[in-house]
Amino acid sequence: MTLLLIIDILGTIAFAVSGALIAMKKRLDPFGIVIIAFVTAVGGGTLRDLLIDTDITWMRDTTYVYIIFAAVFLAVIFRKKLQYVRKSLFLFDTIGIALYTIVGVEKGIAADFPVVICVALGTISACFGGVLRDILCAEIPIIFRKNIYATACIVGGFAYFILRETPLTDDFVVIISGALVMLIRILAVSFNWSLPNFYPEGDSKQKLK
Amino acid sequence: MTLLLIIDILGTIAFAVSGALIAMKKRLDPFGIVIIAFVTAVGGGTLRDLLIDTDITWMRDTTYVYIIFAAVFLAVIFRKKLQYVRKSLFLFDTIGIALYTIVGVEKGIAADFPVVICVALGTISACFGGVLRDILCAEIPIIFRKNIYATACIVGGFAYFILRETPLTDDFVVIISGALVMLIRILAVSFNWSLPNFYPEGDSKQKLK
Amino acid sequence: MTLLLIIDILGTIAFAVSGALIAMKKRLDPFGIVIIAFVTAVGGGTLRDLLIDTDITWMRDTTYVYIIFAAVFLAVIFRKKLQYVRKSLFLFDTIGIALYTIVGVEKGIAADFPVVICVALGTISACFGGVLRDILCAEIPIIFRKNIYATACIVGGFAYFILRETPLTDDFVVIISGALVMLIRILAVSFNWSLPNFYPEGDSKQKLK
Repeated sequence: MTLLLIIDILGTIAFAVSGALIAMKKRLDPFGIVIIAFVTAVGGGTLRDLLIDTDITWMRDTTYVYIIFAAVFLAVIFRKKLQYVRKSLFLFDTIGIALYTIVGVEKGIAADFPVVICVALGTISACFGGVLRDILCAEIPIIFRKNIYATACIVGGFAYFILRETPLTDDFVVIISGALVMLIRILAVSFNWSLPNFYPEGDSKQKLK
Repeated sequence: MTLLLIIDILGTIAFAVSGALIAMKKRLDPFGIVIIAFVTAVGGGTLRDLLIDTDITWMRDTTYVYIIFAAVFLAVIFRKKLQYVRKSLFLFDTIGIALYTIVGVEKGIAADFPVVICVALGTISACFGGVLRDILCAEIPIIFRKNIYATACIVGGFAYFILRETPLTDDFVVIISGALVMLIRILAVSFNWSLPNFYPEGDSKQKLK
Repeated sequence: MTLLLIIDILGTIAFAVSGALIAMKKRLDPFGIVIIAFVTAVGGGTLRDLLIDTDITWMRDTTYVYIIFAAVFLAVIFRKKLQYVRKSLFLFDTIGIALYTIVGVEKGIAADFPVVICVALGTISACFGGVLRDILCAEIPIIFRKNIYATACIVGGFAYFILRETPLTDDFVVIISGALVMLIRILAVSFNWSLPNFYPEGDSKQKLK
């Protein structure tokens, strides 16, 4: 479906650019920037495919590889202008994670995994590129501290299974559960939501290294 | 066998709780706590199964997933009371690593790997959940600095192969080599054993970052 | 072919020794030293084999395991004398990465992957042992900051595909592209080459943590 392909490409671009920006902040060299962008964009899907034991998409269809190269190239060239497209990138990123969540869930269903594992695979697809990126940068993954991102994927993943039991057509199931991921993420960012934390207020900013 | 299942569940709980405690020490949010607990509990077995190229247990049998969720939930609720059950947790943890070592060795034998690789697979099953946990927390794995834990698994793994050559029944081979893992671990903790180190005493606590 | 086997063994030794040295610098204990040496030596090939979904070499042919054990043993014993063989180690390391690059490219071709993926697989074989080593040591991989190493592999990998289109025999294709990897690496080290960086000179050494 053409629309899904466009969303997929926009999402890949947004993920790759966000990876490249973080790599530049860490002052990595061009090889490091490309690898971090690459891992951010395809790492989640790769881990998902290794866990499922299926073919890894980008290794057969190199479209993604070239899109990532192009995105990194542009991100490096225009690195000082990127704040002007930040909103677009956020939007691409948001529809990207919605799509990857659904794709991961559907790959899990296709391989006959239980519901909770399918939701986990969706969340891994959408979120673990960023986890691997942070590990490669020797940081505690940001998503383990400000996780509304992952929560949106988990909620959207379960919504997919609930909606499947309704008389809705498959297309609507995908669209509604994807939209739910986007909505939660956008609301969370707008209102600065975070999960409850269990630590006394006073020192809540300390021990973070 | 029911006994093995009970040991497996107790071990999973002990691993998950230890992961959750470390995640809370790092002040992670609920999502981070769940992921770290999960990786600690099933990461070693997952790496083993990826290396062997076989099905990953927890993806088909979700019992483990729910046990881990429950363990994390209880660990968070009772986080201030956990010192009262520290001895039980240590015991569960110890029988857990004994069991995982033997399970890993037997999975290696079933896939026809050489002895030294089977022992490595046993050690990976028992120890690499903790390694992955520490990587996700951006720390050098503790087991690379205080490793008696891994040594116990390695000794127990080789013992398994030696005992197999004796007229002992299979059950006894499992029990004796498992008990050996537990014994070494308990002695090591009691007497604060560590491997010889190669560094001059004077500055032995410095360079650790 | 005997020559290739000798190169492979020398390369494995050089990689294992370099891993052991870094582990000792981090003051790890013997278990940590062995694991870091092991991951440095076989980590790149392991990741390549997982991505390709093929058998992992060292799990079936334990020669490598014993070579690594022996190399670590000698590196620990003679750790104060290693500067006298530094040049030999650098040479072994250099022909090692040349060989691993070509082996990775050829494994990619055998599994019918596109050219760019084969080159990536060659680079992963040669470079990602070091990346995994640095992650286990909680450092940003050195290759992401001083990457001429990886560039040599990438250039050599593409050269392999260009030379295949010429009337050269297979042996010459391997030798010339492998020699190119070595040449670029040696020149880069001799003349202290690095990739262009995008950061203002003034603060170029700061933000590196």
